[in-house]
Amino acid sequence: MPAKDKYHDHVRRILEKDGWAITHDPYFIKLGRRKGYIDLGAERSFIGAEKGKEKILVEIKSFLGMSDLDQFEDALGQFLVYRPAVMKKEPERTLYLAIPKEFDQSFFDDDYFVEIAELYEVKMLVFDEDKEEIVSWKK
Amino acid sequence: MPAKDKYHDHVRRILEKDGWAITHDPYFIKLGRRKGYIDLGAERSFIGAEKGKEKILVEIKSFLGMSDLDQFEDALGQFLVYRPAVMKKEPERTLYLAIPKEFDQSFFDDDYFVEIAELYEVKMLVFDEDKEEIVSWKK
Repeated sequence: MPAKDKYHDHVRRILEKDGWAITHDPYFIKLGRRKGYIDLGAERSFIGAEKGKEKILVEIKSFLGMSDLDQFEDALGQFLVYRPAVMKKEPERTLYLAIPKEFDQSFFDDDYFVEIAELYEVKMLVFDEDKEEIVSWKK
Repeated sequence: MPAKDKYHDHVRRILEKDGWAITHDPYFIKLGRRKGYIDLGAERSFIGAEKGKEKILVEIKSFLGMSDLDQFEDALGQFLVYRPAVMKKEPERTLYLAIPKEFDQSFFDDDYFVEIAELYEVKMLVFDEDKEEIVSWKK
């Protein structure tokens, strides 16, 4: 299993505070003949009249250290390699990238990357690691 | 500018042997407000009756060292971040990933990753770094 991201435990607590039950830590998935792991699996009952459970997978990225563009490229590639496997295994489960709010503010301040995220339909959960709360869901 | 890949000079010579004129080394492209570089730009006259020049960009990956899956994810992310910028700037120019034949044989022996490459329409140039020749174009 890969090393835990710096904000792994933060995001886990943030999801729990938001009413999610953590069901996988990590979530295992086969990628062809290889083994893959996504940081967290979680579920909660839909709010309102809708029945059933909402299920998500969350891959956490701290985006600390090296160039934010390099890190975004790596995260995008990973997300796009994993998503087809998730869609095949559990089509009702949605894959998210969890990103810190500082990265969201600095990186997606540039329209080019907003368009890239839209083009590849990258869903994101923006979190505040200090306040330990969700800032926004980008669906 | 980023460090040159281990096989940079190999791929440059391989393209020249194949009749390509190297026009950029590296090719500069803006990604929003950021600067991006793609390893090589090249062109040659179309073979046969077709008029004009065929233009390509080649991003070289040696896939040496760490996990091939991690490296493929990184290369995929980079390719997919750069391609929309290339399509906007020079729609007639095609972006390729250059990959060594050992990587092609070992990694794409798994159908899951063949499907991933097709899903995202990743074009690849497979090269033999010892014989210094093109093995195949995956278009």
